[in-house]
Amino acid sequence: MSLIVQKYGGTSVGDPSRILRVAGRIAETRRAGHDVIVVVSAMGKTTDDLIALASEINPIPPAREMDMLLTAGERIAMALLAMALDNEGIEAVSLTGSQAGILTDDSHGSAKIQEIRGDRIRTNLDEGKVVIVAGFQGVSPETKEVTTLGRGGSDATAVALAAAHGADVCEIITDVDGVYTADPRLVPTARKLDEISFEEMLELAASGAGVLMGRSVEFGRRFNVPIHVRSSFHTNPGTWVKEKTMEQAIVSGVAHDSSEAKITVQNVPDKPGVAATLFERLAVDGVNIDMIVQNVSSAGETDISFTVPRQHAVRAKETASAVAVSLGAGDVDVDENIAKVSLVGAGMKSEGGIAARVFRALADQRINIEMISTSTIRISCVVQEAQVKAAVSALVDEFELHEISEEVGV
Amino acid sequence: MSLIVQKYGGTSVGDPSRILRVAGRIAETRRAGHDVIVVVSAMGKTTDDLIALASEINPIPPAREMDMLLTAGERIAMALLAMALDNEGIEAVSLTGSQAGILTDDSHGSAKIQEIRGDRIRTNLDEGKVVIVAGFQGVSPETKEVTTLGRGGSDATAVALAAAHGADVCEIITDVDGVYTADPRLVPTARKLDEISFEEMLELAASGAGVLMGRSVEFGRRFNVPIHVRSSFHTNPGTWVKEKTMEQAIVSGVAHDSSEAKITVQNVPDKPGVAATLFERLAVDGVNIDMIVQNVSSAGETDISFTVPRQHAVRAKETASAVAVSLGAGDVDVDENIAKVSLVGAGMKSEGGIAARVFRALADQRINIEMISTSTIRISCVVQEAQVKAAVSALVDEFELHEISEEVGV
Repeated sequence: MSLIVQKYGGTSVGDPSRILRVAGRIAETRRAGHDVIVVVSAMGKTTDDLIALASEINPIPPAREMDMLLTAGERIAMALLAMALDNEGIEAVSLTGSQAGILTDDSHGSAKIQEIRGDRIRTNLDEGKVVIVAGFQGVSPETKEVTTLGRGGSDATAVALAAAHGADVCEIITDVDGVYTADPRLVPTARKLDEISFEEMLELAASGAGVLMGRSVEFGRRFNVPIHVRSSFHTNPGTWVKEKTMEQAIVSGVAHDSSEAKITVQNVPDKPGVAATLFERLAVDGVNIDMIVQNVSSAGETDISFTVPRQHAVRAKETASAVAVSLGAGDVDVDENIAKVSLVGAGMKSEGGIAARVFRALADQRINIEMISTSTIRISCVVQEAQVKAAVSALVDEFELHEISEEVGV
Repeated sequence: MSLIVQKYGGTSVGDPSRILRVAGRIAETRRAGHDVIVVVSAMGKTTDDLIALASEINPIPPAREMDMLLTAGERIAMALLAMALDNEGIEAVSLTGSQAGILTDDSHGSAKIQEIRGDRIRTNLDEGKVVIVAGFQGVSPETKEVTTLGRGGSDATAVALAAAHGADVCEIITDVDGVYTADPRLVPTARKLDEISFEEMLELAASGAGVLMGRSVEFGRRFNVPIHVRSSFHTNPGTWVKEKTMEQAIVSGVAHDSSEAKITVQNVPDKPGVAATLFERLAVDGVNIDMIVQNVSSAGETDISFTVPRQHAVRAKETASAVAVSLGAGDVDVDENIAKVSLVGAGMKSEGGIAARVFRALADQRINIEMISTSTIRISCVVQEAQVKAAVSALVDEFELHEISEEVGV
């Protein structure tokens, strides 16, 4: 008998019939003799609807009250799921984040899990009950206030509970079959991965792969909890994210991200402290920076380019322009039509020539590379947004990341 | 400066524009220098919608999960109301029943308030905040489970908080102007009462007046909290429900109740223990009994009639029929087309001849009285449902309970 944590997203519990189907799946797992902790998100569009209601009432609602409001969503879903399990003849109990012992800091809207107190869940599991926990929420022991964990919060709840309770696996049950070598909506022949390391998954998540948030992968890595990303539509194996994978592929996959803008400050005087001044000011103004590239100097001047989330582009341009004036630099350009394409693979560490193959593959498709940034297991290139599909396809071809044809129909 | 508790029902906070209007009213009270505790129900039909969702999933949902589900409704309303007050520039904080220190027993769906711990509300009031509390809910300190208080629960929350915090008044802000001498939908000339005693209000509530539940009036009486029932549409005074009223009217009002059915067991042998056997069995089967009338015996036999909520009528007939067979009694009849009309007044205690005036007034309208039951301050008659309007009007006429014409237009 093992302890399994299963996380179901909002789409999986979007209406009563889906909640009954999810209950059937949980009941199967329970009847197979496992202890089960279920983490559930709010039904369908509930969270969006609540946010819309709030914005009708107050354009800048207090964060504390926003958390009070949004946590109602998971509360509804988890109670209905407990009722559905009761209907299946399975004893179940639903617990709020607070009742489940999820203690966080007091940052409303983006709280961080600090500790998990396991007594109440443990007692209920020992009584033979399936424990259903509201995702995305916790309580600050300092302020005794309800908090939410922000984006990807329900996945984080699931992996953190799996870590705290020593679960054998944390299943993230979602509307895709697993983690693919590239986004199948862009490259239909992309291959589902059977397994991938935490390290690679972290790089893919940071590079735009939406299937898992980096935050929950980081939890899994730190506490060595295997994460199984699998479909809500069938019970075939999905993708295992874990410490060590059996085969260390050179390249695991290609991620892309079309949500950023590129800012370039031209003719920056090439002297010490210039970049520091610029990025300190941007940090103060709350602009999130992703990639930074500075070209080699010519005639005592250089260009500095960086990428930011598109919604930060206007603010970033204002700040950078003010800094440029004070430093005696030139114009500040904004390009919102870019995309970042990233190749990720643990094997890159030891394999030479990967970067060259990336650049050649893109060049062969007449795709211009505007920025480059690398880590030990990732190569990211900024290209024009219109070329993102061609770029991802070129890399899928070059590194043989397609579905293997012999496997089709097996 | 005084402490005012205001309770707003679901209709008053039915949509964002109404929530903003309620916030405006609370803000006015706060700006006038008062401390304010607000108790709020779930928005509009939220509770009904959640009950419907639950019944789609499980015909007999576990009571514990039902409470978890339904408490989401007040949570949404109170957070939105806090946001609306913030928008008005008024500091506010919303608290769940548990956070507000409302401790109950562990009867899910019909919990009783046992104690109120006031620290958290007190601290927030001292910080100058309006405190918004979720109506209808509490927490059982024994089981650490969320509970709901059942029908009329939000009124009970408001009066209990007013008692615990020594409020100067508990305002029940609703969609009627106050308590009337009779239901104005039935008798348009009925008069709004300026004040009424707890005792009379309890009898009116028990006799079918829907404006306040007996439960919250009982709280007010026990802890001597004046309750002001007033309109959400304007700020004119409504009706004060309090310990002692200035003028002790002989008759305060007429209530009616068309939600019951009459059961009659015929030819019951007139011997000791027969009524005990019948009503013990009905109690075991969960049938709620209101009035009971047994006629004088003739030829060693008697008829026993009693009233029950109509939804209990079928069950009551089955149980009564089984008992009738075992006792050697006759047929059991059910009449669902009855109504109870009750005259209530504290002055009846000392004034003779009231009952005779009631019976005469009804007889003059050719209304047959099928059952009679009295307390020291109430006379109730069961009549045919089709005659309820005529019966109420006859009593309003007889006891001069009309709007006083001189006051019209003042």
